Amino acid sequence: MFDKDQRDYITRARIGRLATADRDGRPHLVPICFSLLDETIVTPIDEKPKKRSPTTLQRSQDINENSCVTLLIDHYTENWSKLGWIQIRGTATHLLPNEPDHTPAVFSLRQKYEQYANHALEERPIIRIMPGSVLTWGELTHQ
Amino acid sequence: MFDKDQRDYITRARIGRLATADRDGRPHLVPICFSLLDETIVTPIDEKPKKRSPTTLQRSQDINENSCVTLLIDHYTENWSKLGWIQIRGTATHLLPNEPDHTPAVFSLRQKYEQYANHALEERPIIRIMPGSVLTWGELTHQ
Repeated sequence: MFDKDQRDYITRARIGRLATADRDGRPHLVPICFSLLDETIVTPIDEKPKKRSPTTLQRSQDINENSCVTLLIDHYTENWSKLGWIQIRGTATHLLPNEPDHTPAVFSLRQKYEQYANHALEERPIIRIMPGSVLTWGELTHQ
Repeated sequence: MFDKDQRDYITRARIGRLATADRDGRPHLVPICFSLLDETIVTPIDEKPKKRSPTTLQRSQDINENSCVTLLIDHYTENWSKLGWIQIRGTATHLLPNEPDHTPAVFSLRQKYEQYANHALEERPIIRIMPGSVLTWGELTHQ
């Protein structure tokens, strides 16, 4: 699904944005931390430090109503000839703590983000995105 | 609609992400440059240097089918206690070159981004977002 440049870009990126939509087609959008797990993207339903995001549940509710999602990974620079992004359209599901892939998903997230060491990722569902199509634009080597 | 902290954060931010959805509720997501025009957000349908984004038209087509959009402005830092974002849900319309607000919208975009000096913004529609609700999370003073 991903070629080497895409895989490298996704692996290096520290943040992405995930768009979901409810059953009425109202789009919702949040920043996410994520990692690659084989050919899928995993992102925890985490509680951020200090305050709980009021939209944590909205994201999951949308996915239950409508599994179509779009993940955008991009970078910004004032030199617009160096802009670039990857847009991943796919379907999202919840990976539950008792499912076999939950443990490798947690491992993969903690390997990428040391900040997750003290988050109870084991106890919460993880959102898993199965890519349906991948669109690339601009310069992926610059980030 | 926006308080002072929100207005400052929006004004400082160089990039945001705009989620739209088509009539079937499939979410679409692109990075955008934008500026504040009174209590609305304006963003051009620009051609990026070098290559035209293949999704430029998708965004506009979605808005014609379904005016509900969500704009997210956020920042990332490895210190997760300093993360923050503003999420603006609203409705989007196209502001056409012959409409009176088109000229101030172009002015506002060029004032914020010198890169737009040589883009033919006058000749193209601008997307205007009317905020319906604004949600803030985390630290907006850090960016």
